[in-house]
Amino acid sequence: MIVTHHKGSYEITFGPRPEFHGPMLADSHVAELYNLEGAMTIPAGEASKSLAEYGRLASLLLQQGITRKSHLVAIGGGVTGDLVGFVAATLLRGIPFTQVPTTLLAMVDSSVGGKVGIDVPEGKNLLGAFHPPAAVFIDPDFLKTLPEREHQSGMAEALKHGLIRNPELLTKLHQRPLNQTLEEKLIEEAVKVKAEVVQADEFETLGIRAQLNAGHTVAHALEQVLNFEELLHGEAVAIGLAIEAELAESLGLAKLGTAKTVKDVLLREGLPITHPALSNPEPLITAMKRDKKSTGEGIAFSFVLEPGTCKLVTDVRPADVAQFLRQR
Amino acid sequence: MIVTHHKGSYEITFGPRPEFHGPMLADSHVAELYNLEGAMTIPAGEASKSLAEYGRLASLLLQQGITRKSHLVAIGGGVTGDLVGFVAATLLRGIPFTQVPTTLLAMVDSSVGGKVGIDVPEGKNLLGAFHPPAAVFIDPDFLKTLPEREHQSGMAEALKHGLIRNPELLTKLHQRPLNQTLEEKLIEEAVKVKAEVVQADEFETLGIRAQLNAGHTVAHALEQVLNFEELLHGEAVAIGLAIEAELAESLGLAKLGTAKTVKDVLLREGLPITHPALSNPEPLITAMKRDKKSTGEGIAFSFVLEPGTCKLVTDVRPADVAQFLRQR
Repeated sequence: MIVTHHKGSYEITFGPRPEFHGPMLADSHVAELYNLEGAMTIPAGEASKSLAEYGRLASLLLQQGITRKSHLVAIGGGVTGDLVGFVAATLLRGIPFTQVPTTLLAMVDSSVGGKVGIDVPEGKNLLGAFHPPAAVFIDPDFLKTLPEREHQSGMAEALKHGLIRNPELLTKLHQRPLNQTLEEKLIEEAVKVKAEVVQADEFETLGIRAQLNAGHTVAHALEQVLNFEELLHGEAVAIGLAIEAELAESLGLAKLGTAKTVKDVLLREGLPITHPALSNPEPLITAMKRDKKSTGEGIAFSFVLEPGTCKLVTDVRPADVAQFLRQR
Repeated sequence: MIVTHHKGSYEITFGPRPEFHGPMLADSHVAELYNLEGAMTIPAGEASKSLAEYGRLASLLLQQGITRKSHLVAIGGGVTGDLVGFVAATLLRGIPFTQVPTTLLAMVDSSVGGKVGIDVPEGKNLLGAFHPPAAVFIDPDFLKTLPEREHQSGMAEALKHGLIRNPELLTKLHQRPLNQTLEEKLIEEAVKVKAEVVQADEFETLGIRAQLNAGHTVAHALEQVLNFEELLHGEAVAIGLAIEAELAESLGLAKLGTAKTVKDVLLREGLPITHPALSNPEPLITAMKRDKKSTGEGIAFSFVLEPGTCKLVTDVRPADVAQFLRQR
C-alpha cells in the first residue's frame, strides 16, 4: 500500500519484516523479547515521550556519528514511533526513519500518517511534527507476544476505522473469531482507512483528518482527568466512542440505534464502554474545551452518524454536554 | 521582497516595523531597550538555544492558551529567531511565526530561509526544522542600539553574500562610509542574495544553499575549538572567509588575488582575519571532518573562486588542510 504526502510517498508493507540497516531504536520490552542486538532501547511506557528522553536519544545518535544520510528504524508501539519519529523529524533538521509497529494500535493507527511528537507537562503530543516515515513494515507476527489487554486496546482503533468510514470492515471485525490476534488481511483493511484519510488531509487543516478523532474528544478528556493512569489509550477511545455515540443520538444527530451498535462491537471485544469519572462532568468539559479540534466556544466531536459514516461537529454547547453526562 | 517555499511564500518588508499582534517573544535586552510590554523574554545569549529554554517557552505558551491559529512574533537576533522558530515549528505540530530581526546578522542572514533550531551538548543547531516564517519585518532602526562589535559581526555575513554571489554589492559595501549603521538599501541587497539562494535549494539538498556556508567550515571548527567563547559568530566567519580564501588560492582553485581582496574588505570593517588557534590544526581538522557539508572522507568548503563567485568543493584532503594551516 502506497501513501502519498507533501514530499513524496512511502510504502506500507505487510508480512514478515526484513532485516534492518541503520540505527535501530526499540522499545525495551520488544528489544528483549526479540533479542534486538545493537538496538538503542527506549524504556517502555508513555513517560518516555518526554523532552528528556528526546534529548537523550538525539545526543546518543549524534555521539554515534549520525549524519543526514542516516536512516533510523523505530521498533515498538506508539510511544516508540512517536518519539523516534520526532527525533528523526528534527535531528539535523530532519532525517528519514522507518516505522516498525509492534502493537496492534501502532499498526492500525499511529505508524501511518506522519504525526510524531512528544508530551509536555501541559498535555500529550503538544510538541511534534508532520514527518512521514520513509517506510512502514507491519509484521503481524509481533502480535503473538502482545498482551491481551494491549491487543484489545488496538482493536478499539480498528473498530473506530470501521465505524467512521468502512461498514464492511466493521462487520468483518464483529464477526471474526475471538481469542486470536487480528488477521493480516483485516489489519490491512483498517490501515487502508487511516491511509485514505491522512492522504486527503495530511496537515489536519481540512476537517477530514479530524474524523479519525471519533471517540477521542471524550477519550482525551477522560485520560487527562485520570492523569493518563488506569486506562490504556484504546480503552479510553472505546469509552469515548460509546459515550459520543450516545451523545450524538441524544442530540438527534446520529441515526437511532447507532449507539447500541457501537457498544455491541466494543463489548464483544471486551472493551469498556463507560467509566465512573463520567459522572463528574465539570473537569471533563474543561478538558474538552481545550480539544485541538475546537475552533470557538463550542466543543468539537467527530460523531459517528451511523456505522460507516461520521461528521465533524464543532459547535456542541458545553452546557448540553454537561447535562447529557449528568443525566445518563 | 517575496520568498517562495514548499508550502507557500512570505514577504520580507523593509522599513518601520508595524504593531504586532499575537504572543511576542523577545530577547531580554531588546525587550528592555524597546520597552516591549507583554513580551515573553528570552535571556540574551546563545545559551538560550537549549532544550531547557525550548521546553520552558513551549510550556509557557501552552499555559497561556496557545492554539494552532496563534501566531508567534520573534523579536531579537539569531538566537531568538532560531529558538522561537523551532518552538513555532513544533508546538501543536507547527504554528506560524513572524521574524523581527534586531541585529544586522539576523537581518541579512538568519531571519530569512526558514532554518530554525537549537543546540545540544554535541553541537550547534543539531535539533531543528525547516519552518519558513509567515513574514519578516526588517527595521534598520533597531541597528541604532546595536553594539558596534555586533554590527561588525553582521557585516561579515553581508560581505560574504557579496563575495559568493554579488560583486556589485561587495563593491558598494567596500566603498560605503564607515562609522554608521548599514543602509537599508544595502541590507535589502544582502538579503536578496540570501533569499535567492534559499529559494533555489530550500532543504539544502542540491549543494546550492551550501554556498552560503562560505567561510563557515573554518568558522564552525574554530568556534568549536574555542567552546563558542571569545568570538562572535560573524567574527569567526570573517576569519573563516580569510583562511578559506588563502586555502583556495594555495590549492590553485581561486583566482590569484582573491584572498587579498577578501582580507581587505574584512579588515576595513575592523573584522579579524586570523586567530592563534589556527596554528594547532589537529582539533580543527577533527571538527571540519564532522561538518554537515561533508559527504565522504574529504573536507567540504564553499570556496570563493573570485569576488562574486563561489563553488562547493567536497573532497579536500584533510592532510592538505593540515599542511596549509601549519605552513601559513
